[in-house]
Amino acid sequence: MSTAFTKTRAVRDDFHYFLSVPTRWMDNDVYGHVNNVVYYAYFDTAICRYLMVEAEVDIIGGPVLPFTVENGCRYHRSLAFPQVLEAGLGVARLGRSSVRYEIALFLQDQRDAAADGYFVDVFVDRDTHRSAPIPPKARAALERIILDRRRG
Amino acid sequence: MSTAFTKTRAVRDDFHYFLSVPTRWMDNDVYGHVNNVVYYAYFDTAICRYLMVEAEVDIIGGPVLPFTVENGCRYHRSLAFPQVLEAGLGVARLGRSSVRYEIALFLQDQRDAAADGYFVDVFVDRDTHRSAPIPPKARAALERIILDRRRG
Amino acid sequence: MSTAFTKTRAVRDDFHYFLSVPTRWMDNDVYGHVNNVVYYAYFDTAICRYLMVEAEVDIIGGPVLPFTVENGCRYHRSLAFPQVLEAGLGVARLGRSSVRYEIALFLQDQRDAAADGYFVDVFVDRDTHRSAPIPPKARAALERIILDRRRG
Amino acid sequence: MSTAFTKTRAVRDDFHYFLSVPTRWMDNDVYGHVNNVVYYAYFDTAICRYLMVEAEVDIIGGPVLPFTVENGCRYHRSLAFPQVLEAGLGVARLGRSSVRYEIALFLQDQRDAAADGYFVDVFVDRDTHRSAPIPPKARAALERIILDRRRG
Repeated sequence: MSTAFTKTRAVRDDFHYFLSVPTRWMDNDVYGHVNNVVYYAYFDTAICRYLMVEAEVDIIGGPVLPFTVENGCRYHRSLAFPQVLEAGLGVARLGRSSVRYEIALFLQDQRDAAADGYFVDVFVDRDTHRSAPIPPKARAALERIILDRRRG
Repeated sequence: MSTAFTKTRAVRDDFHYFLSVPTRWMDNDVYGHVNNVVYYAYFDTAICRYLMVEAEVDIIGGPVLPFTVENGCRYHRSLAFPQVLEAGLGVARLGRSSVRYEIALFLQDQRDAAADGYFVDVFVDRDTHRSAPIPPKARAALERIILDRRRG
Repeated sequence: MSTAFTKTRAVRDDFHYFLSVPTRWMDNDVYGHVNNVVYYAYFDTAICRYLMVEAEVDIIGGPVLPFTVENGCRYHRSLAFPQVLEAGLGVARLGRSSVRYEIALFLQDQRDAAADGYFVDVFVDRDTHRSAPIPPKARAALERIILDRRRG
Repeated sequence: MSTAFTKTRAVRDDFHYFLSVPTRWMDNDVYGHVNNVVYYAYFDTAICRYLMVEAEVDIIGGPVLPFTVENGCRYHRSLAFPQVLEAGLGVARLGRSSVRYEIALFLQDQRDAAADGYFVDVFVDRDTHRSAPIPPKARAALERIILDRRRG
């Protein structure tokens, strides 16, 4: 359920759900730009906020937890504190127990993504850590942000 | 210009300037709460955003840079993603080249701080790293958020 | 059990227990130095490694957990990736349920600390979060690193 | 110069150069494992340590800087503080101005990678940010860790 990037560069119209992502001072590295590692913290936060806040799915105390099995990011242009970014989030594939998110970061009023990436998460039983069906409430939430067309 | 905490616990009325601080998924640690280290990232960001965004002071490329020489934090109650916090920021002491900030984190609609801390920054010459007078624009910005009374 | 710093600057001889702390690339900030926030991650790690690895105390799954209620740091000289630091760790005060650690970071072959700080941790019951006596195994471990004399 | 993962799972024999990577307390997230974001900090650090320490390439003050344009990671098994990991690092492709690193994290005495990933870096002129030839010293260092065979 992986295989990397399917499109040259994400654009704003690819997404329906957006989240504001303020940068932090320490996100910037020696080069004066947000360090590549931190982009994943933005992605991670966008996914978890969507599930926990918008969809009210309990991914901390619930019986089924999402574990990330693969992710990736492409960096199209540099970002820097104190910019406030917008993260677009959508679902590219939805399986029985796994989901592939597409995520992109946009500067305000920019059509083309400054960075785009993907996360493949597998839902697992909290005790056995074996894959488990995505619970109905989470599934319904993920279906709401399925990307219209395969991006490309 | 240090000596720690001067009041039992900060309250919302101590501050005039507030900044929204969204938590990130990875801020939470094993105990399910924001890790103590991350509070300093919130404080750090509040200070730098105030200077860079509100006061338009160039603390990256300018000739005089603020270096932190001491800071501290007290943790009154736990915080957790996905909470969106409010940081209150004020200036407790303003010297020739140094400033002591008081900062506190609040949950929405809470009067008492969930955490409060301080930062002592010294402005230094970017080349020699020797202390330098706070530039006029930064000084004016810092004077605007001087705390009414010595907190206590 | 707080009140800040009791000595001008920590020296290597203050400590018996040392831990190697390799810096990471992203620890450096725009100024090319380790960001102030990250020092607390070094401190935090030194404490938890001592308890978990040296003393084999289970601070994750055990019935009593250490929560940080206050900490602070003074920055005497800048540090930078790729330096490998040494953290000195000792106990300055040991109460029924709380402990005050003194911690300092040293560059190799340097007598004076590049930074020094303290952590006050309170042990709490994992369910009620009320303060609880420090368990015997942890207490024995903490007694082994009590600082000879009150530093100063 | 990208296209993701070329092998099912990295093994120790794929690599010649290894770096010790101690975890930090705050690397662990709510699930008690190292958060996915932090793996990239390990990767990032392995690359920069190799260049700066082993190869003595100045990637901070030099005229040509490596910028990351793409990276990815697969998570095969969970990791947790206080584990000390080993990072294997090699070069899979070396172009005029770009390099593709393969990186994997291993638990001690384990043959199969706990995680494996890649970084594509492009060297750019520090002023114009346009791609520039990899400087001779860096190129020589990268050639020393070219992976024997295309992994697979």
